[in-house]
Amino acid sequence: MGMSKKIYPKDNSALRVQPGVTQPSNLNPELSTGLHRFKKEKPSTEAFLKGIRAGNRSMLGRAITLIESELVGEKETARKLINLCLPYSGKSVRLGITGVPGAGKSTFIESFGLQMIARGKKVAVLAIDPSSTRTKGSILGDKTRMEALSTHPGAFVRPSATSGTLGGVARATRESIILCEAAGFDFIIVETVGVGQSETAVAQIVDFFLLLMLAGGGDELQGIKRGIMEMADLVVINKADGDNVRKAGLAKKEYENALHLFPALANGWAPQVITASAVFRTGLDAVWEQIETYVKLMRLNGWFDKHRQQQDLFLLRESINQSLSSAFFENEAIKGLVKGYKQQITEGKLSPYEAAQKLLEKYFAEMKK
Amino acid sequence: MGMSKKIYPKDNSALRVQPGVTQPSNLNPELSTGLHRFKKEKPSTEAFLKGIRAGNRSMLGRAITLIESELVGEKETARKLINLCLPYSGKSVRLGITGVPGAGKSTFIESFGLQMIARGKKVAVLAIDPSSTRTKGSILGDKTRMEALSTHPGAFVRPSATSGTLGGVARATRESIILCEAAGFDFIIVETVGVGQSETAVAQIVDFFLLLMLAGGGDELQGIKRGIMEMADLVVINKADGDNVRKAGLAKKEYENALHLFPALANGWAPQVITASAVFRTGLDAVWEQIETYVKLMRLNGWFDKHRQQQDLFLLRESINQSLSSAFFENEAIKGLVKGYKQQITEGKLSPYEAAQKLLEKYFAEMKK
Repeated sequence: MGMSKKIYPKDNSALRVQPGVTQPSNLNPELSTGLHRFKKEKPSTEAFLKGIRAGNRSMLGRAITLIESELVGEKETARKLINLCLPYSGKSVRLGITGVPGAGKSTFIESFGLQMIARGKKVAVLAIDPSSTRTKGSILGDKTRMEALSTHPGAFVRPSATSGTLGGVARATRESIILCEAAGFDFIIVETVGVGQSETAVAQIVDFFLLLMLAGGGDELQGIKRGIMEMADLVVINKADGDNVRKAGLAKKEYENALHLFPALANGWAPQVITASAVFRTGLDAVWEQIETYVKLMRLNGWFDKHRQQQDLFLLRESINQSLSSAFFENEAIKGLVKGYKQQITEGKLSPYEAAQKLLEKYFAEMKK
Repeated sequence: MGMSKKIYPKDNSALRVQPGVTQPSNLNPELSTGLHRFKKEKPSTEAFLKGIRAGNRSMLGRAITLIESELVGEKETARKLINLCLPYSGKSVRLGITGVPGAGKSTFIESFGLQMIARGKKVAVLAIDPSSTRTKGSILGDKTRMEALSTHPGAFVRPSATSGTLGGVARATRESIILCEAAGFDFIIVETVGVGQSETAVAQIVDFFLLLMLAGGGDELQGIKRGIMEMADLVVINKADGDNVRKAGLAKKEYENALHLFPALANGWAPQVITASAVFRTGLDAVWEQIETYVKLMRLNGWFDKHRQQQDLFLLRESINQSLSSAFFENEAIKGLVKGYKQQITEGKLSPYEAAQKLLEKYFAEMKK
């Protein structure tokens, strides 16, 4: 193996490491996945593709790490890999799940994911939290929360603590979906937290958007962003168990009334409200029924593919617009001017449009240099 | 006058026009406003400013036309005029009103506007419809719908049938507000139709957003865009008169329940639902009370000015981003490539991100030329 050459000097008597006791695998998970063997030696894109196509989870995990990488050299490899995987992608159902902290997302995804596996699906979970500054340690904590699912041979659970731009997070997730699909996963769950702007980005890369709520009359919803309810294809009121069943039923009626006030969706779908208990695994069949009906109907009326095409063209436009905007605001000459203009604007001395025009003129002159 | 030189040839005996009978002013409104006298001769920006500051409505109307103009020469004059008016602006309350067609917006604005005049306010109405292909004739028709208000000396009513981009419409409206404020109007109503995307743009240029609804259990709302209800600072259920009073009361409860499900606004304001009848002029006091309370509270907690500053900085960013995007997609080299890439994307042969990257590389290379 290539790595042994680096560890042991030519005269390998002096630094030979004493073999220790076996560590529990969670202390250094890379050892148990075999990842350490590739630390210095990168597989070729072809080797990546082969591993992914064979359903090798550690290879899939490494490929996603590659995609999330900010290193220029790795970006080029990632680009090639995506292109190789693209022909094998597109055949899954992509499910977005969001909800406030405390709604029981992890437990719900674990219960629902295991149910999907029991139905013969291969389930991948991509958990994203763009605002996160979590260490690798707490990501592992997340994995532990879905222990039964993440250790199941039919599942793949991948938490991402990316801290990039919203566009960057959406891109990494969208490309991770391509890789997971190429690896044969046919049910992909994208989980977000519900408090930031990531939901709008995630809605653009999934087929069906599920909003996980709690009973309790509105107070628990303070944390959820306005506009998210209107993005939902299904509202699930979780923790409808024990003493909470009656309250969950009341909340269901409230949400039904609220959804009734929203205009119909363009695709003809009328979002429903369902009560469920992830812990007691009740209501999960009804959730699947909703998703299944949706997919069938949307395939029948042509919306399913049309929606994905619209999403991709939207991502093209968005990706370009975000790059243009970054290039502008990160331009050194512009940076030097913006602060002063902003000051004049907030003091009411300069119109924002006038400031925009001046900055644009400066920028386009700079670009010619 | 300058214009007589153009009409009458040096030998002015041959073409002297026979004086006719007096026309009703609505046949050629420009004659009654004196606008015809300036047809060929543009006033200087200083003359514009003087006229606007003196509250000359025809001068204000012409200045708005100048702002809406797409002519390069006029844009420069408009820019100068805005800068001259800017120090006199900012002192009004800016009210956005939207609702589906049929909600009775014109009648409501007329009744409410007259009530505001009775309270000592000077009221300007800017009615925008970006999707409109209406002729000048039907704009005049719009004016006629608010006849009592538009002919009142304390009011100024200006319908704009601009067909530009959303950003362009927002800009023209934002700058029209500056002119109206410089002309002494202290209550400015911006009206939109509620079916397009213009509401989001208008929300960025007003202090308070009023949503006009009808009773009837949701069916009438099919025409309203999702997300608009969440932008409202006040929901008014109009036509709460005669047989409709009871139904309006029920609708009020329904909307209150729905609003209750939305999280609190960042500024601490809890949007209310009010029933009113614009025709019978009931409930209008309550509407004003809501707006007055809002303005007082937001001035007290500092949100009023902070919100306007945030809006202006948002407009700066948006204006720049839109210009960058237009410059990109209108670039001839890019135009030639985009169609083919889009085709490859919808066929699943190319990732939208890869296409974006290729196009951006091409664009930045073009820019250097």
